[in-house]
Amino acid sequence: MRRISTFRQVRPVARGLVRDLRVRWALEEAGLSYDVGYIDLGHGQDDPEYRRLQPFGQVPAYVEDGLELFESGAIVHHIAETCEELLPSDPMLRARTITWMYASLCTIEPKVQNLALLEVFHADEAWAKLRHTASTIAVRRRLADLAAYLGDAEYLVGERFSAADLLMTTVLRILRHGTLVAEFPSLVAYQQRCEARPAFRRALADQLAAYDAAAGG
Amino acid sequence: MRRISTFRQVRPVARGLVRDLRVRWALEEAGLSYDVGYIDLGHGQDDPEYRRLQPFGQVPAYVEDGLELFESGAIVHHIAETCEELLPSDPMLRARTITWMYASLCTIEPKVQNLALLEVFHADEAWAKLRHTASTIAVRRRLADLAAYLGDAEYLVGERFSAADLLMTTVLRILRHGTLVAEFPSLVAYQQRCEARPAFRRALADQLAAYDAAAGG
Repeated sequence: MRRISTFRQVRPVARGLVRDLRVRWALEEAGLSYDVGYIDLGHGQDDPEYRRLQPFGQVPAYVEDGLELFESGAIVHHIAETCEELLPSDPMLRARTITWMYASLCTIEPKVQNLALLEVFHADEAWAKLRHTASTIAVRRRLADLAAYLGDAEYLVGERFSAADLLMTTVLRILRHGTLVAEFPSLVAYQQRCEARPAFRRALADQLAAYDAAAGG
Repeated sequence: MRRISTFRQVRPVARGLVRDLRVRWALEEAGLSYDVGYIDLGHGQDDPEYRRLQPFGQVPAYVEDGLELFESGAIVHHIAETCEELLPSDPMLRARTITWMYASLCTIEPKVQNLALLEVFHADEAWAKLRHTASTIAVRRRLADLAAYLGDAEYLVGERFSAADLLMTTVLRILRHGTLVAEFPSLVAYQQRCEARPAFRRALADQLAAYDAAAGG
């Protein structure tokens, strides 16, 4: 029995980006079924019972037979441990995959998230206008390094899709409101390649359907 | 044969914070010896040979018998896999430890790093002054949540030090220039408890000694 938590409803700008998408995708890749528990933005995040499960009030949290986890990266890691396709058992491939999982979340995502916050949520604020150029340059540099590493390869590690690509794709998606990724055609193709996977399509459809159901109910 | 890369020299404000400290510490905890390869800030990071090892030009990178890794979190993860003390084999403790490793680097560090950059490297810039209050509040909230989770416990997971504490301690250290951590006495005690470990003392001394040697040479 697996259960993830996520927000019942979010603003349109966040639909398809909330981090439960990563866990849904990993579960779909692994062929594992799951339930979803919904919390409300704001007061739902501060509920003491939810905080016991997720100390920072974020989503997703994850429960599996008494095991309580949080952090989308850690949950994906946990699921990937049971799925050779997501995290190969070969020691070299495994270590390289974990390297790129961390690189996605620790080297790329913070710069990307800073830029997205600045452009999407604080665009009218004076500090955001002053910081915009430097933040854009920082992201562009990371994307250029990523594109240089990727070269003509289809995936980050070896010749097959892995949990590293899953996480990296969800990081690149955060830039969907802008044109930075489009400066790197190989990254556009990479993202499209990963998002074309049936498991991703199902995960995304399920996330969006839940918002639609909440809006209509 | 293990070899880490790091900077030959850094500004005083960065001494004791550069991320090779994490890897040195993990290796010391695991009782593993290592060599160090030094690169120069700037042009050393852009050297094509180094970029082949570390696509983003950051430190540390890590080589072990032909295995080439980067990302301090991923390297610590790799070392921890061979060290029961750092990453317990019990499935529940293991998954919880990995959760807190990711939480340290993905939920706490980005906010902390943003504040440190703003206070240490951009303090005189207009955007940094405008953003300072919001950035401080964001870090304080994370620290309050962390302190609430920790409660009276000595370590993040179970009753023993683990790789999660190693990473979290190095994140808290990034705030050493200010007084935010001091607002939470239990976090001060936690950080001191972790930094009192002989393995940490050796790792820090070795990092600092290398800067002193480079400065004197």
